[in-house]
Amino acid sequence: MTDFAQAVQDILAAGQRMDNRGWVPATAGNISRRLADGRIAITRSGGHKGFLQAADVITVDENGKPHDAGNRPSAETLLHCQIYQQDPSAGAVLHGHSVASTVLSMIEPTEALQLSDYEVQKVFEGQTTHDATLAVPLFRNDQDIARLAREVAPHFGVMPAGYIIRGHGVYVWGKDMPTALARLEGLEFLLACLLERRKLGV
Amino acid sequence: MTDFAQAVQDILAAGQRMDNRGWVPATAGNISRRLADGRIAITRSGGHKGFLQAADVITVDENGKPHDAGNRPSAETLLHCQIYQQDPSAGAVLHGHSVASTVLSMIEPTEALQLSDYEVQKVFEGQTTHDATLAVPLFRNDQDIARLAREVAPHFGVMPAGYIIRGHGVYVWGKDMPTALARLEGLEFLLACLLERRKLGV
Amino acid sequence: MTDFAQAVQDILAAGQRMDNRGWVPATAGNISRRLADGRIAITRSGGHKGFLQAADVITVDENGKPHDAGNRPSAETLLHCQIYQQDPSAGAVLHGHSVASTVLSMIEPTEALQLSDYEVQKVFEGQTTHDATLAVPLFRNDQDIARLAREVAPHFGVMPAGYIIRGHGVYVWGKDMPTALARLEGLEFLLACLLERRKLGV
Amino acid sequence: MTDFAQAVQDILAAGQRMDNRGWVPATAGNISRRLADGRIAITRSGGHKGFLQAADVITVDENGKPHDAGNRPSAETLLHCQIYQQDPSAGAVLHGHSVASTVLSMIEPTEALQLSDYEVQKVFEGQTTHDATLAVPLFRNDQDIARLAREVAPHFGVMPAGYIIRGHGVYVWGKDMPTALARLEGLEFLLACLLERRKLGV
Repeated sequence: MTDFAQAVQDILAAGQRMDNRGWVPATAGNISRRLADGRIAITRSGGHKGFLQAADVITVDENGKPHDAGNRPSAETLLHCQIYQQDPSAGAVLHGHSVASTVLSMIEPTEALQLSDYEVQKVFEGQTTHDATLAVPLFRNDQDIARLAREVAPHFGVMPAGYIIRGHGVYVWGKDMPTALARLEGLEFLLACLLERRKLGV
Repeated sequence: MTDFAQAVQDILAAGQRMDNRGWVPATAGNISRRLADGRIAITRSGGHKGFLQAADVITVDENGKPHDAGNRPSAETLLHCQIYQQDPSAGAVLHGHSVASTVLSMIEPTEALQLSDYEVQKVFEGQTTHDATLAVPLFRNDQDIARLAREVAPHFGVMPAGYIIRGHGVYVWGKDMPTALARLEGLEFLLACLLERRKLGV
Repeated sequence: MTDFAQAVQDILAAGQRMDNRGWVPATAGNISRRLADGRIAITRSGGHKGFLQAADVITVDENGKPHDAGNRPSAETLLHCQIYQQDPSAGAVLHGHSVASTVLSMIEPTEALQLSDYEVQKVFEGQTTHDATLAVPLFRNDQDIARLAREVAPHFGVMPAGYIIRGHGVYVWGKDMPTALARLEGLEFLLACLLERRKLGV
Repeated sequence: MTDFAQAVQDILAAGQRMDNRGWVPATAGNISRRLADGRIAITRSGGHKGFLQAADVITVDENGKPHDAGNRPSAETLLHCQIYQQDPSAGAVLHGHSVASTVLSMIEPTEALQLSDYEVQKVFEGQTTHDATLAVPLFRNDQDIARLAREVAPHFGVMPAGYIIRGHGVYVWGKDMPTALARLEGLEFLLACLLERRKLGV
């Protein structure tokens, strides 16, 4: 199997998994994988991420330009490219929309969600204990993706659990697709806990 | 495959999807598709929408009269027909009952649910930004469907996210079944967020 | 297929459906079907209802006595028998344990849960409108099932949505398995709505 | 089939079930089975428990030392070994991370969660009625697993529903895998009820 064919398979399976968890409602979310030759395989704009076909995965260069000019990448492709550029170890990027990430990011007055004392924090790069605080930065949603990317840029290197765009969703990445998926599940689990605690007022 | 056979397949798949999400409990909900010749394929009255068979889909004319006099359409067929008459672009209509739509529509004192600042709002016709307010009108439930349809009538053209009947459920449509399903998922996602926020008091 | 073989198939499918919804945790719940000859096919004591095998379904007489003396019916078989005796139209009985029914029944100070203004109320026998109040009686849990049955007895004929044992679960029935399942789904949907409303204080 | 091959099959199926319920997010959780010869078959460190392959199950001795020196067991293997040593009847051990167990264990100020009046309590060893109180002990999370095991040690014999590590998850066991799974489901159901009641303030 070629590297691209494997990437397509990874992306389709990730889309089904995210749909199964309710994290890609409607046509939300996008999914990508870096290929060995530096190209990025990414989901085409629109379409449901739980029902992807091979033809829904296109390739773009490191700046998000599609290799086949007839293909229209999602505007958010730029955020995927930024992650691959800023983090050379990144091999897969997931963007999903969950109820918990949407709601928490809209109501939190500070600039980050703080996670402490959860065993699951250990799923993130460099975290070896529950006894630490992990900050997940929150950025204002913006239809101007280039401007949004500039807001995110200074945070690379200090957001092991990814980041959240307010009222929009999470961006999470890892060295390969299983790692990215595990981190997404870890983050969504922690956000689900946080949401329950907010309801309990503790 | 004939247009009708394709419509049957679309309707059965939509029913399974809605059931999987918990939006067609008991015998609730109904699903339709406009055929190229103007007929409407719609689920028969009664029966579980998650376990539809081909024989559970019948055809009615634009006024809801069954082509086969022995078939009994649901009383709510009239609301589907109204949508197809009022919106020439409509190709599929979904009616589901979720916990979120039921509860929110029963407790909201004003005449619409207001949605703002959610990225997912962009799934609806004509919405290009999260930075807008989308109103989802609420109508009083009525066993007299003709009277209910008269209440809905004046709102056509200004309800891109569909509408909700109080204590009953949502009506959502789109140019084809995938679009209608995406909008239903988008609306239900937004209602789920709204319900969580109401519990948090924000 | 014999009537018993069909009943076994109905019971296994119902168990899988209830498990899929989270209504038969651990070894909870039980499921039965009346056979044409008056015998009752019912799940054996113990075992997970989501993973039933044909051998997990036994037959008992109208008083709950197993036809094969080596078979041990659940203690709650008596409650199934009571329903079949009191309601000649009953062809299938479902008993499940949901979070909503458990929690609501433990905290409600009055003797019934009241349901009003929900369209889904129409799934129950004799209900033609949302504009009515449906009472679902609550009985104190009791390990003495005969004594519990005596508490339930006077209510037959006036509990179209079934009944709930506090901290334990629901009993729902219908003329056949699809009807019983539809009513169970309807009741659980309404209880889920009620639980959300209690959290919202409305 | 050898005893080990059967254990592998039990462990893979348990992992899929726990994943289906959302109890093994990311790489969380671990699962083991005691073999007839005294060895313990247990999931390897890391990896997603919902997608286990046969090669992800290794064997360790009663002190947690892997039989194949190249295999790295999870640090928490020690807690599994402790259960098998302290409870000779234990044949399978499950450790999962649910939202309910995580949240409740982090906010409870006392040293145990108290469960009363739930029918489902009867799934646990020696419980014959709902009319009793079941205490589920809570232990402080600790990356030093040997020290954590010493905290747990004095409680063996008086924790029929297993125990919870705060902010981390549950440990549940039984004579075989179906019994352990039924108890895990029972405990998680009761914790889900408790969490809802905390939100309702009752």
